Amino acid sequence: MTTPIITLTTDFGVRDPFVGVMKGVILGICRGTHLVDLTHEISPQDVVGGALALEGAWRFFPPGSIHLAVVDPGVGSARRAVALSANGHYFVGPDNGLFTFVLDAGDWSAVSIEAPIYRLPQVSQTFHGRDIFAPAAGHLAAGVDLGRLGPALHDPQRIVIPGWRMDGATVVGQVIGSDRFGNLLTSIPVDQVRAMTSRGRVTVELEGRDLGAVLVRYADGAVGVPAPIMGSSGRLEVFVRNGSAFALLRAARGAPVRVTNI
Amino acid sequence: MTTPIITLTTDFGVRDPFVGVMKGVILGICRGTHLVDLTHEISPQDVVGGALALEGAWRFFPPGSIHLAVVDPGVGSARRAVALSANGHYFVGPDNGLFTFVLDAGDWSAVSIEAPIYRLPQVSQTFHGRDIFAPAAGHLAAGVDLGRLGPALHDPQRIVIPGWRMDGATVVGQVIGSDRFGNLLTSIPVDQVRAMTSRGRVTVELEGRDLGAVLVRYADGAVGVPAPIMGSSGRLEVFVRNGSAFALLRAARGAPVRVTNI
Amino acid sequence: MTTPIITLTTDFGVRDPFVGVMKGVILGICRGTHLVDLTHEISPQDVVGGALALEGAWRFFPPGSIHLAVVDPGVGSARRAVALSANGHYFVGPDNGLFTFVLDAGDWSAVSIEAPIYRLPQVSQTFHGRDIFAPAAGHLAAGVDLGRLGPALHDPQRIVIPGWRMDGATVVGQVIGSDRFGNLLTSIPVDQVRAMTSRGRVTVELEGRDLGAVLVRYADGAVGVPAPIMGSSGRLEVFVRNGSAFALLRAARGAPVRVTNI
Repeated sequence: MTTPIITLTTDFGVRDPFVGVMKGVILGICRGTHLVDLTHEISPQDVVGGALALEGAWRFFPPGSIHLAVVDPGVGSARRAVALSANGHYFVGPDNGLFTFVLDAGDWSAVSIEAPIYRLPQVSQTFHGRDIFAPAAGHLAAGVDLGRLGPALHDPQRIVIPGWRMDGATVVGQVIGSDRFGNLLTSIPVDQVRAMTSRGRVTVELEGRDLGAVLVRYADGAVGVPAPIMGSSGRLEVFVRNGSAFALLRAARGAPVRVTNI
Repeated sequence: MTTPIITLTTDFGVRDPFVGVMKGVILGICRGTHLVDLTHEISPQDVVGGALALEGAWRFFPPGSIHLAVVDPGVGSARRAVALSANGHYFVGPDNGLFTFVLDAGDWSAVSIEAPIYRLPQVSQTFHGRDIFAPAAGHLAAGVDLGRLGPALHDPQRIVIPGWRMDGATVVGQVIGSDRFGNLLTSIPVDQVRAMTSRGRVTVELEGRDLGAVLVRYADGAVGVPAPIMGSSGRLEVFVRNGSAFALLRAARGAPVRVTNI
Repeated sequence: MTTPIITLTTDFGVRDPFVGVMKGVILGICRGTHLVDLTHEISPQDVVGGALALEGAWRFFPPGSIHLAVVDPGVGSARRAVALSANGHYFVGPDNGLFTFVLDAGDWSAVSIEAPIYRLPQVSQTFHGRDIFAPAAGHLAAGVDLGRLGPALHDPQRIVIPGWRMDGATVVGQVIGSDRFGNLLTSIPVDQVRAMTSRGRVTVELEGRDLGAVLVRYADGAVGVPAPIMGSSGRLEVFVRNGSAFALLRAARGAPVRVTNI
């Protein structure tokens, strides 16, 4: 049998032992699990940020991987707990839209995690990551069928994930965040940009500022000048060679981005 | 044989490769060990903070787990190195009180880590985490008996861990820290609070400020208003719904907390 | 067969899922790999900093370990990708001098990673950590011979790693960084200092300030006074007992350090 893999994505940070405790619970259920941190630095309670991080990462893991994500402003309220199967991967977390990108992308099946034997004996009202989600992920890793975690869930919660739309011949999207290097990520897929560049020259505008053509390599940029680039995340990005686009442009999530054939 | 588990708790941070080096030493001794970080963000040399972090986390790991903790202001001095067995778990680190909560909680046996064959060949005076503690944990993981690490230690060091006491009918404790979400942790066990609530209404005071009754769910709080809550850590906590109790109240470790039946 | 080990050293930080994605790629190739983070907090694009971190850490891992390092300002340019074998360990990353310390230290053999079957099917111009280096490390972990990754590389890139030289009877080196505790690391090997102390008394100067004799234990220092010490990293360091040498002296990389027999 292959070693099961569980990835972890949370807003718990690494200062407190919350993540370690979830790992302890998982290993108590399925000792051989390989645990991989995606990030624990999602901004507190930023469900959209958690969804965006996981959306860009899950496909690089082998089939059968279990993606445990906990960004959970509604812990202790009536929101449900969900376990999903889609594309040969599993997703476990609060039913608050964290997995919208899976629901929107194809076939899936989901259950509401309710079976008491697959939770910790005592369930708190403030840390379901430890008491409900980590145990569910651990039992999936140990080979428990998804369907045994609870009843089918036909209407998992969705949120609005920043996307893109056509405005005439212009693609309109937005900034969705920035990375450690100060690169700005946008909601516009590089596939969409490639389709446009195949039709002719393209220019990118950020908050009304013309950033010119889309580059392929960082080395193609002029030092200190912001420029669009085909991002490795599959999204159009904006970078500054030898600098930080975020520091220069201060564009926050939601800042409008337009791509136009010229 | 099951995979051995070693947890790591230090004040080393993650900027420098200290923790990675300890892991390399462990894997050189017991290659199959599962290594789990609890936290490396204990404030430099804050032994009490290290003890509090580990106290809240160790019980969520399976029996036989080895908890390696290094917060070690006395490295290179005469302080001893200790390996403890208690509750079916192992604890390894400097003998400076880091494990007081284990010593106070029931049966234990301890040794002073001294046997040269269970240390690195060269022992520095400045990094015992690498040279003494990681090797001892690795050898325990590999199945070496605790007693072979060195002579019995009958008087391991204890420190004063913030606790609680009765002042008439009032439980008096203190703030012991805050977490990433700005929740304040106190030294008062929720079991104690539950016993009081079973006798009637209860109110909590923090630094003389009345915070009202103890809630069970974050959703029960009023937005922006600090309130006490039964914490998932097993301790009474203070939170602000959609906000940070720490940012609002600025209560540091030691700030007095009182719970009274009204 | 023993579990393969891959260490990871990058400037990617832990806020974004870059590191997790590299781990997913590795586990897709060699599922049983033990992954150990050295640090992901190398300053963005600080190749010298990456080299210094790895230089101090690799030897504490067991033989056969694979050290994956990605600090890669030249990603997408003509710089090559390198896999090295030396001292029974492997090193994989951009050919930009990150591994100079290996090249300078003895026998090695190297290849230019070029074979398409050992890369991801799609190679971006902006994230070779994921598309080239992680797959190469994963295939080495899975038992692929170094020589199959690509043609021999006889002239891997070197950089100037801060070192030391004799100026008459004085050893001259420099500050190379600081650690979490505010200790200053220098480029002067403790072996060199030991050779000098065996010949008589020694004094250390930092930026012209006399710091006195080299101590062995932190406890030997006077509180608040900076002093040189034999560092656990194998380098001369400067510390302040119960304080931070970096905060007190503000010495940055390159600040001159002199050790003289008096």
